[in-house]
Amino acid sequence: MRQAIKQAQKAYELLEVPVGCVLVKDNKIIASAYNKREHKQSSLAHAEMLAIAKASKKLHNWVLEDVTMYVTLEPCLMCTGAIFQSRLKRVVYGAKEPKFGVLGSLMDLSQETRFNHRIEVSSGLFQDEISQMMKDFFKQLRSTT
Amino acid sequence: MRQAIKQAQKAYELLEVPVGCVLVKDNKIIASAYNKREHKQSSLAHAEMLAIAKASKKLHNWVLEDVTMYVTLEPCLMCTGAIFQSRLKRVVYGAKEPKFGVLGSLMDLSQETRFNHRIEVSSGLFQDEISQMMKDFFKQLRSTT
Repeated sequence: MRQAIKQAQKAYELLEVPVGCVLVKDNKIIASAYNKREHKQSSLAHAEMLAIAKASKKLHNWVLEDVTMYVTLEPCLMCTGAIFQSRLKRVVYGAKEPKFGVLGSLMDLSQETRFNHRIEVSSGLFQDEISQMMKDFFKQLRSTT
Repeated sequence: MRQAIKQAQKAYELLEVPVGCVLVKDNKIIASAYNKREHKQSSLAHAEMLAIAKASKKLHNWVLEDVTMYVTLEPCLMCTGAIFQSRLKRVVYGAKEPKFGVLGSLMDLSQETRFNHRIEVSSGLFQDEISQMMKDFFKQLRSTT
């Protein structure tokens, strides 16, 4: 998660909402990414999506079994869908996202038994530090716009 | 939808699950795409995602307001999330997808009031033709693998 936070800090410096993500397989980081929605002008450029794309490219496989995602913020609907589509094993997220998060906040899709894949989810790692980073970011954004 | 079906047929010819998608704004097609998951070895390469990426690139904007999506098959969780993220106005899909569809089948997220955006959804256009194409595809796939 420390590496995911470092990724989030890169986004912060670019005035992107600071979300960072790393994917780990066999105790090695196979992909790292941070949110680039504004720079790419693409709603698909969330940190999780970019990390999944990188990992699939690296492994030459869209199936990312036995891969764990560490992401600073609770994933949204799109990213959670991508996590299911990629068949990730586990998601560890830091802070909750009360407006968009669907792995515990708005709903908890990890408990949804109708999908054909299940993921393990845990959360709370470095949540105070991450929440503070988010608050600082939005405070700074408001003061500069 | 006729154009979306043409896109799906391109996928079919490449032995990709035949799903096609077009995005329309002001009565003009602004993006067309078909499923390329196997060719790109990316779980993110669903027709809807590729069409959204193309449209954002064309309009230089991640916000796709007043855009309608025509897609042959009911969108999955990831694509529905991307539809919300991109703030599309309306989705018209052809056939239902009982295993993965979340706009009427597994669940109906268009009725979810907790998201910060609402989308209009209609379905059933050319559904018999599209369902038949899907059946033919999987029959052919089973006979060749």
